[in-house]
Amino acid sequence: MQRQYAILTEGQSEPHAAKTACSVIRYRGSEVLAVIDSQQVGRTTQEVLGVGGAIPFVASLDDVPRADTLLIGIAPVGGQIPASWRGVILAAIDRGMDVVSGLHDFLADDPEFAAAAQTRGVRLIDVRRNRQRDVARRIGLRPDCLRIHTVGHDCSVGKMVAAIEITNALKRRGHSAKFLATGQTGILVEGDGVPVDCVVADFVSGAIEQLVLQHQHHDFLVIEGQGSLVHPAYSGVTLGLLHGCAPHGLILCYEVGREIVTGVPEMRIPPLGDIKRLNEVMANVMQPCAVIGIAMNGRLVSPEVAAAERQRRREEFQLPVCDVLRDGPGELVDAVLQLRKRIMP
Amino acid sequence: MQRQYAILTEGQSEPHAAKTACSVIRYRGSEVLAVIDSQQVGRTTQEVLGVGGAIPFVASLDDVPRADTLLIGIAPVGGQIPASWRGVILAAIDRGMDVVSGLHDFLADDPEFAAAAQTRGVRLIDVRRNRQRDVARRIGLRPDCLRIHTVGHDCSVGKMVAAIEITNALKRRGHSAKFLATGQTGILVEGDGVPVDCVVADFVSGAIEQLVLQHQHHDFLVIEGQGSLVHPAYSGVTLGLLHGCAPHGLILCYEVGREIVTGVPEMRIPPLGDIKRLNEVMANVMQPCAVIGIAMNGRLVSPEVAAAERQRRREEFQLPVCDVLRDGPGELVDAVLQLRKRIMP
Repeated sequence: MQRQYAILTEGQSEPHAAKTACSVIRYRGSEVLAVIDSQQVGRTTQEVLGVGGAIPFVASLDDVPRADTLLIGIAPVGGQIPASWRGVILAAIDRGMDVVSGLHDFLADDPEFAAAAQTRGVRLIDVRRNRQRDVARRIGLRPDCLRIHTVGHDCSVGKMVAAIEITNALKRRGHSAKFLATGQTGILVEGDGVPVDCVVADFVSGAIEQLVLQHQHHDFLVIEGQGSLVHPAYSGVTLGLLHGCAPHGLILCYEVGREIVTGVPEMRIPPLGDIKRLNEVMANVMQPCAVIGIAMNGRLVSPEVAAAERQRRREEFQLPVCDVLRDGPGELVDAVLQLRKRIMP
Repeated sequence: MQRQYAILTEGQSEPHAAKTACSVIRYRGSEVLAVIDSQQVGRTTQEVLGVGGAIPFVASLDDVPRADTLLIGIAPVGGQIPASWRGVILAAIDRGMDVVSGLHDFLADDPEFAAAAQTRGVRLIDVRRNRQRDVARRIGLRPDCLRIHTVGHDCSVGKMVAAIEITNALKRRGHSAKFLATGQTGILVEGDGVPVDCVVADFVSGAIEQLVLQHQHHDFLVIEGQGSLVHPAYSGVTLGLLHGCAPHGLILCYEVGREIVTGVPEMRIPPLGDIKRLNEVMANVMQPCAVIGIAMNGRLVSPEVAAAERQRRREEFQLPVCDVLRDGPGELVDAVLQLRKRIMP
């Protein structure tokens, strides 16, 4: 079913805070009618978020009468709904719109929202809600399904985008491939997946293992990474995911210029070589595995700076490096196909 | 408040499956009246579980009329209540007993149990239930509170027991120390703590960080470890805990003779030296940290075999090694005090 989204990013319309909005616009743009932020009225999402062409910013729901769904377009630390947004959510329900949220605080658990939705007969869709209760067992993995996993040096550096772009390029080249979404935005884009950061901790690896088992009839699975092994808040999710999907190869994702751990101002991110080594050491506990390519996110730098950085990283790591949005994912897809040829001849 | 426990281990009365029962008997034995397992009637817990002296096994609740609380004494993979135990739980409620459980399936969420408990006016106490929603921030850690963390080569090898024994020995030597419980059994023993394996994955590190912040007026915190960095199902919990408590020193716990990963028959546990290295590499992402001693669990071997193993490990690692129950934790406590003297002079 195609939706007709109005996306709410009120007061938080910059690409980092509004990353859910950005990715839904990028990959499901035909379903997005407008983005609501009273401070950005008159501008397009292309101007403000760098994506989406002529999709307009509008001041309120009154300006998007055809929308059938309100999507909460941010992913704040801790996952709570900003208090000032309650009125907009209630107004959307009152108009008969479904409301979709990827936050940790579930809409359907809020008595006021739940009562209003029941009265009006609309759905509150909490993308992170799950009842995952599977423990990982490492049984039944298909030996000729290649598992590629995107890992990163921090949160929000492009692990999901790299995974989607590589998957789409594999499909364009005629391969049977699927993107396995592990976060709320990826699930909205793909239509299925597991919100691993909201799974009860004991079942994180089991949840992703189940997702792999369900989809391993494909020849390639590209599994979205979360957080980073050096993030003091989220490293457990990162490792549970890494061990649960037991990848054959890793794509190392980083953002040019990112130096400080998201949300932890006093902590510097270790050098990329250290991040690579940590991921390889931990991945190899389960399965022989190496970083086979690097996805560089150069959104904050000029094309010239990005080109120089790309060359420098190629020389440093002797691996393919590309910005999947600026350069396309071709070199990384080549690396995936070479890995398959080498280990699954 | 002192309780008068009857502990239920029906059909699963061996020390590994019944580890919750064993530890509550070991550390709160004065509150345990009997253990219920119709297959063990006539024997003592000392005979069957190796702990508890003359505490008897009995066939049913009828044999423990003074008990005011039924404790579920096992911790199965996946955390579900065996179907055959429902009758005993309902009978306990009917007698006016509280029921305490550390399982992932919450008693209070079971409509039949909940209705019976409400009718009878008793409490259903789910030790794992929590509403943890704190993200780790690495702010406010007291620089002169020494944090020691027990880590291991697998599940159920003695990380909790080592932490408790070291804490108690520190107290006996006159130091201000606290055991920080991170699992259901530890919480039952200590009376507080955080059930990290049942926290929503994004908040594991934050939950243990909050527990540290609450108790860091002590000079020593000894934080119970969970799982292991090489367990395919639980490594995420292990790392979230390791990074959330950011220890200054590690005690490496292992069981002599344990070779296969619990619950994953085809996976061998890597050598102890590899486990040590992985834990040190991952701990040092947050804070300078090394393994300062080894807690060897020799419950399955003779005193002679244990003594030889202890000597071999001492030579291999050039570190103090002891079985905290057989040898006492003295050498490990010495190592903790030496670490404090070295880094907090």
